Amino acid sequence: MRTVVKIDLTKTAMEESRKIFHNRYHPEIPPVDTVKAGEVFKVECFDFSGGQIKNDDDAADIKNMDLSVAHILSGPIAVEGAEPGDAVEVELLDIQPFPERAWGVTAVLDPNNGGGGFLGDVMKGPCKAIWDFEGIYASSRHIPGVRFVGMIHTGIIATAPSHQLLAEWNRREGVLIASAPNHQPPLAFPPSAQGALVGGLEGTPLGERVKVEGARTAPTREHGGNCDIKNLSRGAKIWIPVYVPGANLSFGDIHFSQGDGEIAFCGGIETSGIVTCRVQVIKRGVDRFALKNPIFLPGPVEPRYTKYLTFQGIPVDRGIQHFLDPRVAFRQACLNAVAYLQRLGYTAEQAYLILSAAPCESRINNIVDVPNSCCSIGIPAEIFDFDILPRADEHVRTFDNKALATLRF
Amino acid sequence: MRTVVKIDLTKTAMEESRKIFHNRYHPEIPPVDTVKAGEVFKVECFDFSGGQIKNDDDAADIKNMDLSVAHILSGPIAVEGAEPGDAVEVELLDIQPFPERAWGVTAVLDPNNGGGGFLGDVMKGPCKAIWDFEGIYASSRHIPGVRFVGMIHTGIIATAPSHQLLAEWNRREGVLIASAPNHQPPLAFPPSAQGALVGGLEGTPLGERVKVEGARTAPTREHGGNCDIKNLSRGAKIWIPVYVPGANLSFGDIHFSQGDGEIAFCGGIETSGIVTCRVQVIKRGVDRFALKNPIFLPGPVEPRYTKYLTFQGIPVDRGIQHFLDPRVAFRQACLNAVAYLQRLGYTAEQAYLILSAAPCESRINNIVDVPNSCCSIGIPAEIFDFDILPRADEHVRTFDNKALATLRF
Amino acid sequence: MRTVVKIDLTKTAMEESRKIFHNRYHPEIPPVDTVKAGEVFKVECFDFSGGQIKNDDDAADIKNMDLSVAHILSGPIAVEGAEPGDAVEVELLDIQPFPERAWGVTAVLDPNNGGGGFLGDVMKGPCKAIWDFEGIYASSRHIPGVRFVGMIHTGIIATAPSHQLLAEWNRREGVLIASAPNHQPPLAFPPSAQGALVGGLEGTPLGERVKVEGARTAPTREHGGNCDIKNLSRGAKIWIPVYVPGANLSFGDIHFSQGDGEIAFCGGIETSGIVTCRVQVIKRGVDRFALKNPIFLPGPVEPRYTKYLTFQGIPVDRGIQHFLDPRVAFRQACLNAVAYLQRLGYTAEQAYLILSAAPCESRINNIVDVPNSCCSIGIPAEIFDFDILPRADEHVRTFDNKALATLRF
Amino acid sequence: MRTVVKIDLTKTAMEESRKIFHNRYHPEIPPVDTVKAGEVFKVECFDFSGGQIKNDDDAADIKNMDLSVAHILSGPIAVEGAEPGDAVEVELLDIQPFPERAWGVTAVLDPNNGGGGFLGDVMKGPCKAIWDFEGIYASSRHIPGVRFVGMIHTGIIATAPSHQLLAEWNRREGVLIASAPNHQPPLAFPPSAQGALVGGLEGTPLGERVKVEGARTAPTREHGGNCDIKNLSRGAKIWIPVYVPGANLSFGDIHFSQGDGEIAFCGGIETSGIVTCRVQVIKRGVDRFALKNPIFLPGPVEPRYTKYLTFQGIPVDRGIQHFLDPRVAFRQACLNAVAYLQRLGYTAEQAYLILSAAPCESRINNIVDVPNSCCSIGIPAEIFDFDILPRADEHVRTFDNKALATLRF
Repeated sequence: MRTVVKIDLTKTAMEESRKIFHNRYHPEIPPVDTVKAGEVFKVECFDFSGGQIKNDDDAADIKNMDLSVAHILSGPIAVEGAEPGDAVEVELLDIQPFPERAWGVTAVLDPNNGGGGFLGDVMKGPCKAIWDFEGIYASSRHIPGVRFVGMIHTGIIATAPSHQLLAEWNRREGVLIASAPNHQPPLAFPPSAQGALVGGLEGTPLGERVKVEGARTAPTREHGGNCDIKNLSRGAKIWIPVYVPGANLSFGDIHFSQGDGEIAFCGGIETSGIVTCRVQVIKRGVDRFALKNPIFLPGPVEPRYTKYLTFQGIPVDRGIQHFLDPRVAFRQACLNAVAYLQRLGYTAEQAYLILSAAPCESRINNIVDVPNSCCSIGIPAEIFDFDILPRADEHVRTFDNKALATLRF
Repeated sequence: MRTVVKIDLTKTAMEESRKIFHNRYHPEIPPVDTVKAGEVFKVECFDFSGGQIKNDDDAADIKNMDLSVAHILSGPIAVEGAEPGDAVEVELLDIQPFPERAWGVTAVLDPNNGGGGFLGDVMKGPCKAIWDFEGIYASSRHIPGVRFVGMIHTGIIATAPSHQLLAEWNRREGVLIASAPNHQPPLAFPPSAQGALVGGLEGTPLGERVKVEGARTAPTREHGGNCDIKNLSRGAKIWIPVYVPGANLSFGDIHFSQGDGEIAFCGGIETSGIVTCRVQVIKRGVDRFALKNPIFLPGPVEPRYTKYLTFQGIPVDRGIQHFLDPRVAFRQACLNAVAYLQRLGYTAEQAYLILSAAPCESRINNIVDVPNSCCSIGIPAEIFDFDILPRADEHVRTFDNKALATLRF
Repeated sequence: MRTVVKIDLTKTAMEESRKIFHNRYHPEIPPVDTVKAGEVFKVECFDFSGGQIKNDDDAADIKNMDLSVAHILSGPIAVEGAEPGDAVEVELLDIQPFPERAWGVTAVLDPNNGGGGFLGDVMKGPCKAIWDFEGIYASSRHIPGVRFVGMIHTGIIATAPSHQLLAEWNRREGVLIASAPNHQPPLAFPPSAQGALVGGLEGTPLGERVKVEGARTAPTREHGGNCDIKNLSRGAKIWIPVYVPGANLSFGDIHFSQGDGEIAFCGGIETSGIVTCRVQVIKRGVDRFALKNPIFLPGPVEPRYTKYLTFQGIPVDRGIQHFLDPRVAFRQACLNAVAYLQRLGYTAEQAYLILSAAPCESRINNIVDVPNSCCSIGIPAEIFDFDILPRADEHVRTFDNKALATLRF
Repeated sequence: MRTVVKIDLTKTAMEESRKIFHNRYHPEIPPVDTVKAGEVFKVECFDFSGGQIKNDDDAADIKNMDLSVAHILSGPIAVEGAEPGDAVEVELLDIQPFPERAWGVTAVLDPNNGGGGFLGDVMKGPCKAIWDFEGIYASSRHIPGVRFVGMIHTGIIATAPSHQLLAEWNRREGVLIASAPNHQPPLAFPPSAQGALVGGLEGTPLGERVKVEGARTAPTREHGGNCDIKNLSRGAKIWIPVYVPGANLSFGDIHFSQGDGEIAFCGGIETSGIVTCRVQVIKRGVDRFALKNPIFLPGPVEPRYTKYLTFQGIPVDRGIQHFLDPRVAFRQACLNAVAYLQRLGYTAEQAYLILSAAPCESRINNIVDVPNSCCSIGIPAEIFDFDILPRADEHVRTFDNKALATLRF
C-alpha cells in the first residue's frame, strides 16, 4: 500500500519540503502524484496549522498563531481517468492519529480579534485545552470529568476548482466583503499571497500568480473543502464533483473529534493524522446525481452513544424576535447548554470547548413554525464520569475544578 | 391507568365537547383535571386540525382547511405541587396511533397563500400524501418505493404561560409583525378570536377575553409548544419550565413520523393518537438547570437506521454569497436532496414530502467557517425498497410512478 | 384491517369458545379463517396459560397451574396459495399488549416437580414476580431497582405439521422418553388427551383422535413453534416451511420481554397480546433456502442498550471437566451472574428472574477450544437505576430489598 | 507511552528472542516488565502461530503447521500492587494490526487430524482464506462478495495461575483425557515440553520443569485465557481474577475479526497486532464480584450492523432427538446457514469460513423448552455486496466463484 504523501512530524510544515503541501485552491497547482481508480493508498496530513501549537499549558501559541498558513493540505493527488463532470467517490477506509503524537488541541482564538467562534462575544480568550489520546479515547487535563471516543475525521477533502469556478468564488465572496469591508471579524477572506503555499509551483512565476489568485481554505465550497463534518470518519464515503482533469484531491485538517457545528472555530481536536482511502471515478456523476455540493454516507463504526441530553433554542435573543433564523436559534441552544454545564461546575470556556470538541449532535428540528424555528445541541451524557442528567436531588460531580488554573489565557 | 382526556374520533374536534380542548395559550384556561406527581396517565389527542383531513386522493380538504383552529390541544392538565420556577419532567412512556385510524397525512398547503413550507416557492400545491400505518411502519399509495418506521411523537407538549410571559410573547412578536405588516406569508400570527377554543372558559366573558389575548400555537416558545422535534418519541423525557401553579400541561399535534426540519410545514405525518406519560416535579428546576427553553433526552427505541445518504448545502443561493446563514445552507441541502430524488424517478413534490415526513436527520455541521456554514439533510437509504446510493451503473428503481396521477392538486 | 382471532380477556381460554384455540399440533385441525398473501391482519392471543395467573403477591396460582392446557394458541390461520414445500414469510408488523391488561408474570414453577428451569436445582420455588407495563417499559414491585424496555414477541409462531412430520416427532421424542421413562423432570412430553384443545374439531370423533395424536407445544421444532426467541419482536420477519396446504399458522405465548435462554422456564414476561402481521408465500422456499428450520431477521426498533455486563462460563462444574459442553458453560455463566447480582443485594431468585425476563444476551462465544467452550450472558447495565458495573469503591444501590417479603413461595 | 513488549515481524517468534514470549501457563514464569496501576502501555503480539502462515494461495503451511508452539503470548507483565484475591481491570484502549502487515488468515486445519473445528467432519481441508485489511475492512480474494468491519480483539488475555490452580487444571483435564485416551481429536491437551516456550526461564533448570508442568493455552479457563470472545475489541473492559502477586498478564492471539463461536477452530482472522491498554487493580475483587470467571463490558465502537439473517437449530441430528443439548442445536443452526450460503453460490468451505470469521452472532435463544433448546447464528446481511435476504424471485449474486480455484487443499 503506497503512502502518497509522507510527512515528518519533527518539523513544522514550513520547515518541511513545501512541494507536497498547499494552502490555497487553484487549478494550476500540479498533482504531487497520481493514483489509479480503485487503488488503496495513504496520505499523511499535518494539523491545520502545520505544527504551530504546543502540548503545554500556555495559550501563547494560540495568541500568536499565523493563520495565513492555514490549512496545510497534503496533495493534490490526481486520479486516473477523472474528468470534469465526473464525480469522485472517496472511501475513507481508516483515519488514525500518528502513534507518536497522541494529543491534540481545541482552542478559542483571540475573541477581540474575531477568532472566538460562534460564542466568541461571551467567551474569554485566547485559551486552549490539550486532549490526550488513549487509544480510541480523548481526555483533557484542562477539562476534568469528561472522556469520549474520537470520531476522527478529515475536516477537509477537496477537489481542485476550475478557473471558472475559482473566479466565481472570488466574485461572490468579493461582493460580500465589499458590503462591509471593515467588518470585524471579516465577513470572508480574500486571496492573499501572505503565507501562501502552492506546492509544486513554489518558487515559480506561475506560483506567484497562483498565490495572488488562489482561494483561501477557510470555507467549504462546492468542491468539498473545509466542511468540518464530524461524520466523515472511519468507513465513510463521499462523492465530490470533479472540475479539472484528474480531480486533484487534497486532504487535511484532521480532527480527532468534533461536535456538529465546531462552534469554537479552532473547535475540533486539531491534530495530524494518516488517511487510508480508495477513490473511484463515477463518469458523469455531476449530472447523474444532480451533484452541486458533496454527498456523503457516514461510516459503520461511529460510537454507540445513546443518551444525548439535548438543549433547545429559538430565534429570540435578548428580547428580539427574529424570523425563523436558525443561526439565532442554534446560538440560544448552545448558550443554554453552556449555562447548564456551568451549573455542574464547569467554566463557560470549558463548556464551550466540550460542546465544540465532543461528539455532540446539532439539529435543525423544525424550520417552518413561524416565527420560531427550533434548533438543538445534544451532548452524550455517557462521556461524563458523573451523572449529568437533570435530577431531583443535587448533582454530585467527580472533580474539584482545579483545571481552571491551567486553562490559561 | 386513567385516561385524563378522552376523545371521539367519529366527530371532528369542533363537534366534540370543546371543554377539553384549547388552541390558544393563556394562563386563565382552567385545567381539565389534575394528576399527581409520579402518576401514569393517558391523554388522547386529535390531529392538529381536529379532523379536517380525509383519507382520499383529493387535496381539496388541504386547500380549504381552516387553519384558525390549529392546533387542537388536549388539556390543560394540572400537576399537583408544581409551582412557578419548578420544572416538570414529562416521561413519554408510549405514544400510539388509534388502532381504528391507521393513517395520516403529509401535505403542502397552498404555496400561493404562504403555506408551502421551507421550499414552498419551488413546489406546486396544495397537494397531499396519505400514509397507511401497518404496525410500526408507514407507506403511501402516493409515494411508491418507500416505507419507514414511524418515530411517533407529540409535536406539542407545553406548559401554560404566566401573564407576564404571554405579554412578552405578544410584545416581541408584535414588533416583528409591525416590521413588515403586509408580508406574505405573515412573519408571525397575532392573537385572533377567530376559531379560538378556550376549553373550560368556552362561553364565558373571561373566555372571550382569553380568545383575544391568547397566544397562537404555531411557534415553539420557552414553554415547549410546537417544537416539532421528532425525537420526542416513545421513551423520551423532557424538562419544561413551570410558569403557573399546576404547570397546566397541554398535548397535541401527533406525528406518526417526521424528518428533522418538518420542511413541508404540514410536514409530519399528521394523525391522532394516545400519549401515555408520567410527570414529575423538580423543585426550582428553572434555576437549577438554567432552564430557559426545554431540555430533552431521546428514547431508547428509535429505529436502527444506519445508512443516512447525506446532502450538504452552503449559504450560496443563485450566485449570492450569504454570511454563514444556516437557513440558506440548509435550504440548499434540501434542494440538492430533492434534485437527487428526482433523478431516481420521484417528482419534486414527492421528494419534498419524503424529506419532510421520513426520519431524516438535519444537521448544522459547522457554523464557523466564514463565510460558509455547512448544513445537511440525511435520508436513511434503508427506507427505500431499491438501492438509492450513488452507483457507477444505472439505478434500478422498483416503481413506475403512476402514483403521480393520484397526488392531486 | 381484519382481526382474524378475537379474544375476551374477561374469561379464561377455557371459558371462551374453544373453537378458535388449540394447544396441540396436528394436520387435521381446521383453519379458523383464511388470509390472502400480502394481507395485513391482527391476531389476538391469550397468555400461554390461558389466563390462569393472577396479578397478586401469592404464588399459589403458579403452584397449582394446569400445564396440560399450555400453550393456548390462536388459529390455525390458512394462507391462500401456500402449499407444502413453500415457505411462508411472516412479517410481525407490530405486537402490543392489551391496553386493559398492563401486566405480566415471570415465574419459577415448582422445582421439586421439575419446573424450576435451567437453574431449578439451586432455586427455591414456586415463586413469581409481577411486572407492570408503563408504556414501553416493564418494572416489578417484586424486584426493585430494575426497569427495561419490553422486546415484546410471540414465543410461538408455527405452521401445522404434515402427518409424516408429526409421526416423526412422535417417533423420535418417544425414543428419547423411552431411554429414561422415569426421569424427573420428563425428558419430553408425549401426546396426551388431558387438557387438549383441538379448535374446530372440539367435540368430534376426529377431535378425540387428534387429542391422542397431536404433538405437545412445549418444544420448538422444524415448523417454528415454541422457539422463544426474544428478537421475534416488532418489525421482525420469519421464514417457516409449509407442510400442509394453507400452511395453517398458529400464534401464541406472548412475552412482553425475555432474555436469551428464557432460563427460568416460565421465564419471559408472560402476557396476552395483539399481533399485527402480513404473510407472503414464497414458492418452493424450502428447497430454495435449504429451509430445515426457520430463518428470521430481527426488527428495527430493538432497544438501544449498549452496556452489556457480561459473565463468562466454561464447562467445568464442581470440579468436573466436561468436553466443550455449552450447556454446562452457559449454566456456569448464569450462576456467575446470579452470584454477582446477589452481591448487589438481590436474592438468588430475583437474580434468576431478572436474567430470564430482561433483554439479556446469551452467546456461544467459542465452541472449539478444547476442552472448554466459552458461553456468556450479558445484562444491560442501563436497566438498573443504580450503577452495577464493577467498581473500586462500594456499590450504592437504591433499594432496601423489602420486596423479598412479597416474592412469596 | 511505553511499549512493554516489542516484536520484530521480519522474524518468526521462534527466531525472535524467546525471553519475551511464552506458550504455557505457569506461576514461575517471570514477568518481562512491571506496569503501574493506571498506566497506559502497549503490547505487541505475534499471531497465534508465531508467524508460520504465509500470504499465498497454498494451504501447505496450514497442513504442516507446528501447533505445539501455539499460542505465542507476549508477557507476562506484572501489575504493581496486584495480589491474589484482587481483580485486574484491563481496559483495551485500542487494538490495531501492524500497518506493515495488512493481512490475516482463517483456516480449516486438517479435518482428518482432528483440526477441522465444529463442522470438521463435513468439511474438506486443510484449506485457508487470506483476508486483506483495507483500513477498518477485511475482504478475501478467496471468498468473493463479502467485506466486513473487523472487530479486532485479543483472543487471549490471561493472568498467571497459582500453583494450586495449575494443579487443579492438570487434574481435571487429566481425568477427562483418561476417560478416552485414544479419542481423535484428543479431548484435551496435557502439558508437553515439545514446542514449549517459558520466557525468562528459557534455558534454566526451572524452565525445564515449567515446560513439563505448564498448562497448554488452547482452552479458556478461570484466568481468562483463550476465550476467543469477539467483543473484547476496542474500548472493552475485562475483569479477571488475580492468582499470583503482580497478576502476571499475558496477551496474544490477535484476531482482526471473528464470529461468535469461532467455529472453524483456526477460525478468527489470525494476525499480529498492537494492544494499547490500561490496567487497574480492584482490591478483593474476587470476593466482591463473586469472580469465578472473567466478566467483561464490550466497547463503544462495535460496527453498526442491523440486519442479522439468523438461522435456527434444534438438538435433532439425523433423526436422533437429543435432550436440550445446545451443542447439537448450534451445530444444526450452522449447517443450516452453510446450506443457505451454498444456495447463493458459495462452497461449503467458503460458507464455513464466513461464519467463522465474519462478525456473526451466535445465541442460545432458549435452553428450557424440553426436549428442544433453540440456538442460532446470525449473519449480518450488510457484509455482502449483493442481497442475501430470502426473496420471492431469484438471488442475483455479484460473483462468478472463480475463487474456488485458489482456495486450495
